[in-house]
Amino acid sequence: MLTKNTIKQIASLRQQKFRKELGLFVVEGRKMVEELLHSQFETVGLYATEAFLADYPSFANAEIASEVQMQQMSGQDTPPGILAVVRIPEQGDIKTSSRFVLALDGIANPGNMGTLIRTAEWFGISDVVCSNDCVELWNPKTVQATMGSLFRVKVWKTDLSVFLQKAKDEGKAVYGALLNGEDLFQMPSKPKGVIVIGSESHGIHPEVMPCITHPVTIPRVGGSATESLNAAVAGGIIIAEMTR
Amino acid sequence: MLTKNTIKQIASLRQQKFRKELGLFVVEGRKMVEELLHSQFETVGLYATEAFLADYPSFANAEIASEVQMQQMSGQDTPPGILAVVRIPEQGDIKTSSRFVLALDGIANPGNMGTLIRTAEWFGISDVVCSNDCVELWNPKTVQATMGSLFRVKVWKTDLSVFLQKAKDEGKAVYGALLNGEDLFQMPSKPKGVIVIGSESHGIHPEVMPCITHPVTIPRVGGSATESLNAAVAGGIIIAEMTR
Repeated sequence: MLTKNTIKQIASLRQQKFRKELGLFVVEGRKMVEELLHSQFETVGLYATEAFLADYPSFANAEIASEVQMQQMSGQDTPPGILAVVRIPEQGDIKTSSRFVLALDGIANPGNMGTLIRTAEWFGISDVVCSNDCVELWNPKTVQATMGSLFRVKVWKTDLSVFLQKAKDEGKAVYGALLNGEDLFQMPSKPKGVIVIGSESHGIHPEVMPCITHPVTIPRVGGSATESLNAAVAGGIIIAEMTR
Repeated sequence: MLTKNTIKQIASLRQQKFRKELGLFVVEGRKMVEELLHSQFETVGLYATEAFLADYPSFANAEIASEVQMQQMSGQDTPPGILAVVRIPEQGDIKTSSRFVLALDGIANPGNMGTLIRTAEWFGISDVVCSNDCVELWNPKTVQATMGSLFRVKVWKTDLSVFLQKAKDEGKAVYGALLNGEDLFQMPSKPKGVIVIGSESHGIHPEVMPCITHPVTIPRVGGSATESLNAAVAGGIIIAEMTR
């Protein structure tokens, strides 16, 4: 039985403070929950409305929540009818394995953060390393924007300049998306390494800059007055070109 | 003097209904307002706080608003201190001139809509044609996401299948972002034409499909379990490749 206390606790997970305190986050929607249940993540609670279960009987192991209870627990204006409470996994040591690693430096927008992780997966990048000041991965908007990729891509938070310095010392290429780098479409070769995407407003942090071995620029068409691309779009274009 | 009525009217522009009724929309933030003032758009009101004007005295022609008044007018949680009320321009006949035209088919997310317009401008596409069911261009989130490109790129709303049929009849290429098209990176030639990006959840509308002469796919790396890319990212990758 869904108690008032449980509902209150789940509702509190909209706030980072309580996600951190309880070590839990929320996943909503049929597709997202399906992908969750196929993943290594630990689901500690699964709730669905009767209307939802009538449409999708395969979720019969979910506990039934009334429409009102679902509204109280959900972080969405129109609750999709199924909601899971998930344990935040412990972050192990960084062990990357894909040919390219995506490094996110100060990404502040949860939509961009999630979209970049989703894009990484599409192009076969299974490792994402984030600076400590990136937006939280368990933020409901980040979770939603990954469209399930966060259950499969490995994501670490760390001191990015330390990680990148080590990669550079090991002889890896460290690509940085900059406005005055080499033309992305003219690069003669693309040795394996790390692709760094900077923040929406400030780009790559000054302390990260010395680690960049390959500054890369997406050429702008002459006459265009726009100053920059959206961080997720720029990341997508660079990742697509590097991994093709 | 800023009257209560004016403040109320400006606040009402957060809603599409009143934007339509009054033929006005709101632009906020220093950079956005700067780009507005350099554009052909008609600014009918310009308001700034004293704190803002102390930092940016070049906006001295703005009417002064108190912090409280700005909070009431602004659609943002943290008002940037400068706000313009702008007349929605009349949509003239569709007259495209750039080598490629971007066609948006049912884009529902204002962030994606604005980002796609911003990306188009970066790559020299000055004409964007939207289906009637795309999210409104004057939505504050769309406006913000364009980062000023909406003041320079021409955007029309129309019956997209009619527009595309005409383009096809004229012998233009009509590229469509699909999951089962030709590999984007293997296309032997890229004749000029229209690039169609479909909606986030339903892709390209069935009635638009017969107009597509060149189905195009962004190849997914083998083993990736993600089903799709974000619409703005997919659009960015395709536009970048087509215009390079």
